Amino acid sequence: MTEPPFLSALLTIVEAAATVAFALSGLLEAARKRLDAVGVCVVAGLAAFGGGTLRDVLLDRRPFFWVEHANWLWALLALCIAAMLFLRARHLAPTERAMQWPDAIGLGLFTAGGTQVALAAGMPAIVAVLMGVVTAVFGGVLRDIVCNEIPSAFRDHRPYAVCAFAGGWVLVGAQALALPAWAGVLAAAAVATGLRALALATGAKLPAWSVGDAARD
Amino acid sequence: MTEPPFLSALLTIVEAAATVAFALSGLLEAARKRLDAVGVCVVAGLAAFGGGTLRDVLLDRRPFFWVEHANWLWALLALCIAAMLFLRARHLAPTERAMQWPDAIGLGLFTAGGTQVALAAGMPAIVAVLMGVVTAVFGGVLRDIVCNEIPSAFRDHRPYAVCAFAGGWVLVGAQALALPAWAGVLAAAAVATGLRALALATGAKLPAWSVGDAARD
Amino acid sequence: MTEPPFLSALLTIVEAAATVAFALSGLLEAARKRLDAVGVCVVAGLAAFGGGTLRDVLLDRRPFFWVEHANWLWALLALCIAAMLFLRARHLAPTERAMQWPDAIGLGLFTAGGTQVALAAGMPAIVAVLMGVVTAVFGGVLRDIVCNEIPSAFRDHRPYAVCAFAGGWVLVGAQALALPAWAGVLAAAAVATGLRALALATGAKLPAWSVGDAARD
Repeated sequence: MTEPPFLSALLTIVEAAATVAFALSGLLEAARKRLDAVGVCVVAGLAAFGGGTLRDVLLDRRPFFWVEHANWLWALLALCIAAMLFLRARHLAPTERAMQWPDAIGLGLFTAGGTQVALAAGMPAIVAVLMGVVTAVFGGVLRDIVCNEIPSAFRDHRPYAVCAFAGGWVLVGAQALALPAWAGVLAAAAVATGLRALALATGAKLPAWSVGDAARD
Repeated sequence: MTEPPFLSALLTIVEAAATVAFALSGLLEAARKRLDAVGVCVVAGLAAFGGGTLRDVLLDRRPFFWVEHANWLWALLALCIAAMLFLRARHLAPTERAMQWPDAIGLGLFTAGGTQVALAAGMPAIVAVLMGVVTAVFGGVLRDIVCNEIPSAFRDHRPYAVCAFAGGWVLVGAQALALPAWAGVLAAAAVATGLRALALATGAKLPAWSVGDAARD
Repeated sequence: MTEPPFLSALLTIVEAAATVAFALSGLLEAARKRLDAVGVCVVAGLAAFGGGTLRDVLLDRRPFFWVEHANWLWALLALCIAAMLFLRARHLAPTERAMQWPDAIGLGLFTAGGTQVALAAGMPAIVAVLMGVVTAVFGGVLRDIVCNEIPSAFRDHRPYAVCAFAGGWVLVGAQALALPAWAGVLAAAAVATGLRALALATGAKLPAWSVGDAARD
């Protein structure tokens, strides 16, 4: 790896913070689907670690975040158990809306971390940006596939992955301008999170594709 | 690899025996879903080899079981053809109940084999146990995902993956006590299979999570 | 790698031509499912690159086709945008029937390319043929899983994967006869595509498995 120690530490913090936000999205999806305790933990874990793990498998990069920092698996387990106890006791109905902010922040952080890792591995710019999107979005995609849903990132029509895509290019541009790595990572995360927040605030929609009565034989 | 030859041979036998049990679970699921002959073979193969293959991809371990022992692919093909001929001739309706025993034995064997492989690869204890669970449970998870079901391991509320989880810790404990590897593997398999059998016999259920009317916008 | 340069170039051409055909199948599936623009691009990309990428992950082979030839990601993006603009303007309802020919040609090309890559990596014959099938069929399988369908390759009852399986063995046979690699690749692609065309023309069906009222508890 060509990463300097400081950048490596920054990436670890970035991935850790985003991990908690995404684990919560998995928890809520699992609750909605009435999964059992095992399903709750697995879906939360997939949402939290799935995107980064898929990126690392594609980049052939080891060890995984959750192997190098195995205590995070205990933290995830504790989070799931606490959520099941707490949410049961209070009969709190978690809503999509309450999750939008941590999810938007996680989107930005994972995008920046994933793109940076791929650039450090020498990937071409478009592949690095794609790896950023995979890191940010495919945890949720795996979560939805396991819960037997079409991934919301692909049918929601609200900008989500495109915010990550834009954020990834900010990091590529910052590196091309020879800016410090931490500045590029922060700018990329801010752009992705900001675009997502803007999309939620304005209700912007992706262009729809009206293909008429597309036949299904 | 640091595995001695004897342990390597033991692991091969363990994985082989469990493979047949899990292939049968895939066969029955494919039959229920009215898949064609290709679907039957693929779903049986995923159920049999999917968990171990996913573990090896995550551990970056090659060759896979079914590459090193490629004759097992022929055996799987023969098993599927035989099942389709035999089950068609007898109009036998396979039931969940008939599958519970071989499935419980496969659960124990795959857990022990998977955990041992991960410990031999130098993984931390929690990761090794998780790899044992992946080996034992994710063949069935992939089987259910391909069959467009929420994986039964995540919504069944009967202990399944938690039995594997407990069995994996038995192996970690046996290694910490410096017991011979074969003793640890056998004890882990016995505990996981025994707990599963106990769960089926007593009808024990995982704690449910009643989150009230979790809103879906 | 033991591949001579000529064969390597041939394999690149083969994979490129098949990629376009499969991307179109993903585009149409995404349109039928009313996915948004992101979903259209991802599903088209999975259908196009998913099979080869899964093969390369299993064979532990890097770089991927779409990393080595990253411009193909731009081409895919352009294809998706063009399709969304063009198909929207004309209100053209794409049909299964119109896709059958490019899909059959892609099936043959991917089978030949995938089997050749696995043979060059020293895999046993049955594994190499299986990798050819994975390359040809699992892009569509991933496409269908993301779209929350049982993969059509597993339940369609019309020969598809079995055509790839037969084509793969043609390549293994050609290599055993010491024929030139290009001859084997072309023969394998022709056999797989030809068998698929024959199956479509004759309406041949895979044997069904009537298990009676297979119980689901």
